[in-house]
Amino acid sequence: MARAQLFDNALLPDGSCVALLVEDGRFAAFLPAGAAAPEGVERVDLGGKLVLPGFVEGHIHLDTSFFGEPWKPHKPNTSGFSVRERVRFQTETIATADPMRERARRQLELCLRQGTTTMRSHVMIDAEVKLSHLEAVAEVRAEYGDRIDIQLVAFPQSGILTSPGTAELLDAAVVAGCDLVGGLDPATLDRDVEKHLDVVFGIAEKRGVGVDIHLHDGGTLGVYEIEQICHRTRALELQGQVAVSHAYALGQVDAGLLARTAELLAESGVAIMTIAPPDHAFPPVAPLRAAGVTVFSGSDNIRDSWWPYGDGDMLRRANVIGHRSAFFTDAQLAEAFDMVSAAGAKALGLDDYGLVVGAKADFAVLDAAHVPEAVVAVPSARDVYKGGRLVARNGALVQV
Amino acid sequence: MARAQLFDNALLPDGSCVALLVEDGRFAAFLPAGAAAPEGVERVDLGGKLVLPGFVEGHIHLDTSFFGEPWKPHKPNTSGFSVRERVRFQTETIATADPMRERARRQLELCLRQGTTTMRSHVMIDAEVKLSHLEAVAEVRAEYGDRIDIQLVAFPQSGILTSPGTAELLDAAVVAGCDLVGGLDPATLDRDVEKHLDVVFGIAEKRGVGVDIHLHDGGTLGVYEIEQICHRTRALELQGQVAVSHAYALGQVDAGLLARTAELLAESGVAIMTIAPPDHAFPPVAPLRAAGVTVFSGSDNIRDSWWPYGDGDMLRRANVIGHRSAFFTDAQLAEAFDMVSAAGAKALGLDDYGLVVGAKADFAVLDAAHVPEAVVAVPSARDVYKGGRLVARNGALVQV
Repeated sequence: MARAQLFDNALLPDGSCVALLVEDGRFAAFLPAGAAAPEGVERVDLGGKLVLPGFVEGHIHLDTSFFGEPWKPHKPNTSGFSVRERVRFQTETIATADPMRERARRQLELCLRQGTTTMRSHVMIDAEVKLSHLEAVAEVRAEYGDRIDIQLVAFPQSGILTSPGTAELLDAAVVAGCDLVGGLDPATLDRDVEKHLDVVFGIAEKRGVGVDIHLHDGGTLGVYEIEQICHRTRALELQGQVAVSHAYALGQVDAGLLARTAELLAESGVAIMTIAPPDHAFPPVAPLRAAGVTVFSGSDNIRDSWWPYGDGDMLRRANVIGHRSAFFTDAQLAEAFDMVSAAGAKALGLDDYGLVVGAKADFAVLDAAHVPEAVVAVPSARDVYKGGRLVARNGALVQV
Repeated sequence: MARAQLFDNALLPDGSCVALLVEDGRFAAFLPAGAAAPEGVERVDLGGKLVLPGFVEGHIHLDTSFFGEPWKPHKPNTSGFSVRERVRFQTETIATADPMRERARRQLELCLRQGTTTMRSHVMIDAEVKLSHLEAVAEVRAEYGDRIDIQLVAFPQSGILTSPGTAELLDAAVVAGCDLVGGLDPATLDRDVEKHLDVVFGIAEKRGVGVDIHLHDGGTLGVYEIEQICHRTRALELQGQVAVSHAYALGQVDAGLLARTAELLAESGVAIMTIAPPDHAFPPVAPLRAAGVTVFSGSDNIRDSWWPYGDGDMLRRANVIGHRSAFFTDAQLAEAFDMVSAAGAKALGLDDYGLVVGAKADFAVLDAAHVPEAVVAVPSARDVYKGGRLVARNGALVQV
């Protein structure tokens, strides 16, 4: 017989209070609160607390965090920001850190106990580390497979053209289990936008996978690269499977160019990932969403070589997005939450997500009257369910 | 006999682990960890947790928060931001809210249980509400007098010249118990910088109190007003007793004008309060501090008519300051914490603050290795002591 549970007295974001019938890990029916549990169905009383769909962590690096290790003071750049210099610091620090599997587990658990039930992690691939990071992270992914869904992106952290052998390694990474192929600053890192994108989209076409490109390149340069990504996406009919992460350029150009680029992004089905960074311009959330662009979010760096911050909490991330975007009304606060839930699911191509019949029963339960209050209050006590199974209680992981 | 306690195994920010001897609510000696408690002295084991000086909440509005009430959706401005329109919304919302004393208590307790042991609250004074807000808040201040020190600023929320009778009310408010006299956007609200400042500094001189002026006026206009405030501060020898709150202008002018204004502020002993607002320019913390300006912080609005955010947590505020200022190194993270502790104490004119012998034994105890880690992790479980007396345990208020 199917495993089944009835989660009674569930307050939904629409204000209704219902009983959620879960069968085989999926929502089977939404019944009136107080409905009798069918025979053999376990009844769980959620006590009128708010039920939110499991959070979608859209951008994280499971291989590089030092969360849970003894404190590592931040090492500043010697002169201005340089991706290559930071990668060198990262390599040095990782060399003396705990094993990658251990670090990935800690970071995963940090996210999990706060309500993330699906994530997309970038995994560094380059001529030096080759597929070693992927091997470690893929092993941890398998280990946690029943508690969290993880997409992996083959991420060319040291560039593609300038790190010989990386093109082949990216392809091998996809064959070995990466769900998407990544890219990184085609202009400033590889000094050849077209050849960089040739490799990335070449692998995407050959292997039938999606694309998620890190793009820090600013201003009109960054917008040009976004345009090229959109054109290639349409040429290969990859709409809905391509994302540009960071895309700072969109926060740096005039309103006219932004509007034209937003239109192109929407038409091309290219999503934008932003963490709503605290100290510099970022893609303006409201105009992009209004133009029909899928804008989602993630934690990005958590206590790593890049900065000392990060908490893996996607509800806090919604709060940060709201703050940074001057989102004050209920509708705006709900938009911020959408970026860490439904919009994230759309960007990740999930078709069985949300508080709807048929979707995976992935949800977080917390004390708030509705989504806007959850976004401003960020209650830390949360119960988290994956496929109807309790994985965290009161913000702490349930040991299995 | 004096009330005395020995707080053993206290990890201090400098990394030493000591026993803090507290007598009559003040630090009497720092002894080696494990020192025997003198006879009749209660021994409290802090278990090696980090001890931080009680946080200084430098800018709050105890009369206007709706924290703890049923959700009040944010009402946006009808066209652009207008202080007067927001004040009207505020008046409407307060009319149907819980009694002010009740709301002030809730907000106070929110701050207290997170580690704030000293605060400066602005209290609205205008021709309509007259001294009614002050009466309510002063009563609550007295009620909590043994758990938190509160300075009150007579705050002309509706302007001074344009709200007839306010000048006299501000003076009466100081006589009735306000510790400082406030002002608000002399140019854009009252359209007369000099007459507005005449009233404010006139009361300061007459009553021997300090000044804390809200200044949202931007760009060179705001800088001009800051200059005028500095000149008046020096003329009246009020150095160290004057603050400008918000001072957005300092984040909007070129580096040369900023540097000159910073020098003037430092020479004039005029402090700058910033919450490090999330969505617009603010006084740049590092250059101001490097120039010798006292820069402190506060929560400002907490779930009120102005915005739905706010948590009353000054450690989280340090985190926000760090994020917004791109403070990544240990020294920078410590600077962010300084703004919610020692710099706040300096701005508020406290001479018995800090983890030093003779100071009030106001401190927070939490789980972190040191200040930088506390600032990035913002642990929510905190024990809070005021004058050596436990007022909150594990983030919850201790009932007395």
